[in-house]
Amino acid sequence: MLLESLRQQVLEANQEIARRGLAPHTFGNASGIDRSGAQPLVVIKPSGVDYATLTTADLVITDLEGNIIEGRLRHSSDLDTHTLLYREFPQIGGIVHTHSEFATSWAQACRPIPCLGTTHADYFHGAVPITEPLTAEEVSSGYVRNTGAVIVRRFRSEDLDPIAVPGVLVAGHAPFTWGKTPAEAVEHADVLEYIARLAFRAVLLNSAVEPIPGHVSEHHYQRKHGPKATYGQR
Amino acid sequence: MLLESLRQQVLEANQEIARRGLAPHTFGNASGIDRSGAQPLVVIKPSGVDYATLTTADLVITDLEGNIIEGRLRHSSDLDTHTLLYREFPQIGGIVHTHSEFATSWAQACRPIPCLGTTHADYFHGAVPITEPLTAEEVSSGYVRNTGAVIVRRFRSEDLDPIAVPGVLVAGHAPFTWGKTPAEAVEHADVLEYIARLAFRAVLLNSAVEPIPGHVSEHHYQRKHGPKATYGQR
Amino acid sequence: MLLESLRQQVLEANQEIARRGLAPHTFGNASGIDRSGAQPLVVIKPSGVDYATLTTADLVITDLEGNIIEGRLRHSSDLDTHTLLYREFPQIGGIVHTHSEFATSWAQACRPIPCLGTTHADYFHGAVPITEPLTAEEVSSGYVRNTGAVIVRRFRSEDLDPIAVPGVLVAGHAPFTWGKTPAEAVEHADVLEYIARLAFRAVLLNSAVEPIPGHVSEHHYQRKHGPKATYGQR
Amino acid sequence: MLLESLRQQVLEANQEIARRGLAPHTFGNASGIDRSGAQPLVVIKPSGVDYATLTTADLVITDLEGNIIEGRLRHSSDLDTHTLLYREFPQIGGIVHTHSEFATSWAQACRPIPCLGTTHADYFHGAVPITEPLTAEEVSSGYVRNTGAVIVRRFRSEDLDPIAVPGVLVAGHAPFTWGKTPAEAVEHADVLEYIARLAFRAVLLNSAVEPIPGHVSEHHYQRKHGPKATYGQR
Repeated sequence: MLLESLRQQVLEANQEIARRGLAPHTFGNASGIDRSGAQPLVVIKPSGVDYATLTTADLVITDLEGNIIEGRLRHSSDLDTHTLLYREFPQIGGIVHTHSEFATSWAQACRPIPCLGTTHADYFHGAVPITEPLTAEEVSSGYVRNTGAVIVRRFRSEDLDPIAVPGVLVAGHAPFTWGKTPAEAVEHADVLEYIARLAFRAVLLNSAVEPIPGHVSEHHYQRKHGPKATYGQR
Repeated sequence: MLLESLRQQVLEANQEIARRGLAPHTFGNASGIDRSGAQPLVVIKPSGVDYATLTTADLVITDLEGNIIEGRLRHSSDLDTHTLLYREFPQIGGIVHTHSEFATSWAQACRPIPCLGTTHADYFHGAVPITEPLTAEEVSSGYVRNTGAVIVRRFRSEDLDPIAVPGVLVAGHAPFTWGKTPAEAVEHADVLEYIARLAFRAVLLNSAVEPIPGHVSEHHYQRKHGPKATYGQR
Repeated sequence: MLLESLRQQVLEANQEIARRGLAPHTFGNASGIDRSGAQPLVVIKPSGVDYATLTTADLVITDLEGNIIEGRLRHSSDLDTHTLLYREFPQIGGIVHTHSEFATSWAQACRPIPCLGTTHADYFHGAVPITEPLTAEEVSSGYVRNTGAVIVRRFRSEDLDPIAVPGVLVAGHAPFTWGKTPAEAVEHADVLEYIARLAFRAVLLNSAVEPIPGHVSEHHYQRKHGPKATYGQR
Repeated sequence: MLLESLRQQVLEANQEIARRGLAPHTFGNASGIDRSGAQPLVVIKPSGVDYATLTTADLVITDLEGNIIEGRLRHSSDLDTHTLLYREFPQIGGIVHTHSEFATSWAQACRPIPCLGTTHADYFHGAVPITEPLTAEEVSSGYVRNTGAVIVRRFRSEDLDPIAVPGVLVAGHAPFTWGKTPAEAVEHADVLEYIARLAFRAVLLNSAVEPIPGHVSEHHYQRKHGPKATYGQR
């Protein structure tokens, strides 16, 4: 039952990737995890299937190690990144990978996205971090899993909280975002693309631009995420 | 009766924000004021409600201090900026806040938009000003109200007329525009985004570009706003 | 009879401006001229009327000096530029003024658009020229007519042929294009915007980029315009 | 029979050029080749015909030297480039020429597109190369054929495999792409435009950006093209 609901959420998150124009061709995928049972179950998009024709029956179900539990199609080629992130970040319930244009451009430029505005601060606590490139050893010994590993290494080395910083740029590749649910993960992918566009233009207009003051960014982050959130009808 | 008409105008201005693509997600809001009675009444968008489903019944009515007069939804989180601007700029009848992409990029770059062309001069008398960042004190003692305060401070310090300069960039945040009516405020938000796009590309093409000569900008401003306006069927 | 046909052509050229997204709001206009009679007649868009509702009956007819022959609406505020160009460039039959975004950005940057590619060369023989700014004297003694005068001055000073160079950037303002017919003028406005976009990105990628070799640009120009044109089904 | 299928594929590739927005106006064309018979047959778009009204009956059929076999319309003015590439690159079955905006901007900037990301590496083995400009001699002695000749010269001089590098920028002109089929050629044209957009922004964000490490790009290229391809449902 929970699994059926999760399948539906993962389907919708994948469709949302396409609807928001975040992934040209089939360069993107969403997954979700059901941690309620003894064996956590990951639901993920199959590889290379068009978003327009995707159904819940096409989704692939694996365990937390990526072993196939159910599914007649090959899973997304990025599965091992997703499962590693689910193992390392137990707080998260959904992951989205896109090749959205501006976030990917920052990833290709090998620059973190500095926090230059309040919308950024509303969603990301500090800069959107960027990984190091994978070493030759990491590429040859499990490229996809190690894509997850360099993400986790960045979060550990900067002591980042994956709930406060719900996404990352993989250097020379593209972004991953996540959230408590697949829907939240795709919302973060969309917001990340938006703030990547704003920051791109801001640094071209002012190459010496500084992040907004900490007292402003902290206020915005707490406004949406703190115990006294004041935004929206809640 | 006047109030009913104002509700309708505020609804339409909010819808126009969405229709013109000026506010991704629900990052934006419009308000209007009825100054005809003994107690001026402000009509403003509720917080975090989708533009597509917004109705006049969802709008919130407050007095000039932001006290709720009517409304079953929580008001826009930016209410205190709106009311402060209505108190300080008695000439204006509508306010629009957006996160439109290029204007917001200039705000994030902490640069005023210089008057580089005649369309700019038709609508804004001189540069589009930018505020200073809020101090830590201002953030903690009423962030939203003080967002209005830094706007007013910029206008006072440069002796700007809010009718001649119908908008501003809040540093590290986004633009606010206004006008005699909510409809004019949203038109100014749209024009501001257009001139922000033009100016972005112009300064990239020529980093040493100078504002257009004062005799040209003055001519254009007077052509649309002076006593002998010659534009349109009026 | 000819006039009726011209009215229709001018209507369609104005609609085409809107359809191709070349003029935000009502910032743009097209005109045509019938030179067949003893008194040449100019047909031009009225001022500030929405493209969507424009009809042939709304168009204004003037003589070559701008005296109204027919029309119940106020003519475009740019009329005196059009009539001066028709007087000075007797080869042309249609004029289009837009505020298309990238061409206007070049105009604001006060840079001519260099011929960086073959599409440019297919339509414009050499750079797209830019005028000087109007002097204070020129602004006060007939701003709109003198906008035409600075265009003509640029063409005379560089000995340019208005058929080979069917457009210009007015510094700090926006482009004007023209052609043998109103339809050709609007096609040139559209191509100008396209080459302005390409050139914008090319100069950002390579600030030292040189115009394409004369033997290539000459070949392309002659391919479309020379006596042995080989493009299309003609 | 084969020829009928090829006509259909070439029609669809041409329509796809328009549908994906790769060629403003009619600046673009697709062709395919049937190499199964004693005499290879090339099917190509006619010149200057609107994509919307194009039918298989409009397509022109030539031999490998460009002699007309069938067709009532004039062939694309780029025919001689296509036939030369088919003669020199016997592995390819379809060619697409576009003036897509960002790829053309790189061509105008006279810069190869460096491999800055994994999507690039998935499709192009190394940088997207750029030709030298044509000499005056080459322009006058067969401009269109020599456009093919400078492409081939670049591939020979860098020892590039046209299957591993399925496209090129012609300096000061625009891109050509190809593939085993017309459909693959147009997919490569679309991907090229996408990676041109990403790389444009990446080099503006970081002018010193380096290509991704060879061990990453090689892994990606082999993932899609090597004997152990793991992407998609194959």
